[in-house]
Amino acid sequence: MKDNYYAVIFTSIRTSEDQGYRLMSEEMEKLAKIQPGYLGFESAKEEIGISISYWENLESIAKWKANLEHLVAQDKGKNEWYKWYKVRICLVEREYEFIAPI
Amino acid sequence: MKDNYYAVIFTSIRTSEDQGYRLMSEEMEKLAKIQPGYLGFESAKEEIGISISYWENLESIAKWKANLEHLVAQDKGKNEWYKWYKVRICLVEREYEFIAPI
Repeated sequence: MKDNYYAVIFTSIRTSEDQGYRLMSEEMEKLAKIQPGYLGFESAKEEIGISISYWENLESIAKWKANLEHLVAQDKGKNEWYKWYKVRICLVEREYEFIAPI
Repeated sequence: MKDNYYAVIFTSIRTSEDQGYRLMSEEMEKLAKIQPGYLGFESAKEEIGISISYWENLESIAKWKANLEHLVAQDKGKNEWYKWYKVRICLVEREYEFIAPI
């Protein structure tokens, strides 16, 4: 990855409903990966869920948000799966990495 | 929170070492909270850990990074606790929220 790409931080609290959630989220992950401008994905869940997807630019994010299958997932998310979520669109200005010596 | 603040995304893979890690990370969380410019914190861990702290500006991030106790923790992190980590400094350009109706 390079500098000056975008991160979309999606933090969420789930409802207890699980109907179709896992399947749908797997599908969305696969589908996101093949969108133009997609750069990467990271996710972890404990009390809250945090999913971060990385994108080349705002246009690629807007297109993914408007993707038809994704829109269906977003509706399901609001109606069934999430008590709360927050989306933050962020410009990655700088990054650095540590890799432990073997 | 308001727009145009900063998010520091810290993604990591831990070693199997746990000596002092939990205590230190709790302490760092407490200490971060009282730094000038601190806005919030979110964290979750599965295969990877994701911790995001939110800050008013780059100056507050730089000061927290240079905090003496935090520097000790960063050293420990490199020498004992982390196989890998990546830090991304991000400008939050836009955000929106969903709260489920009761």
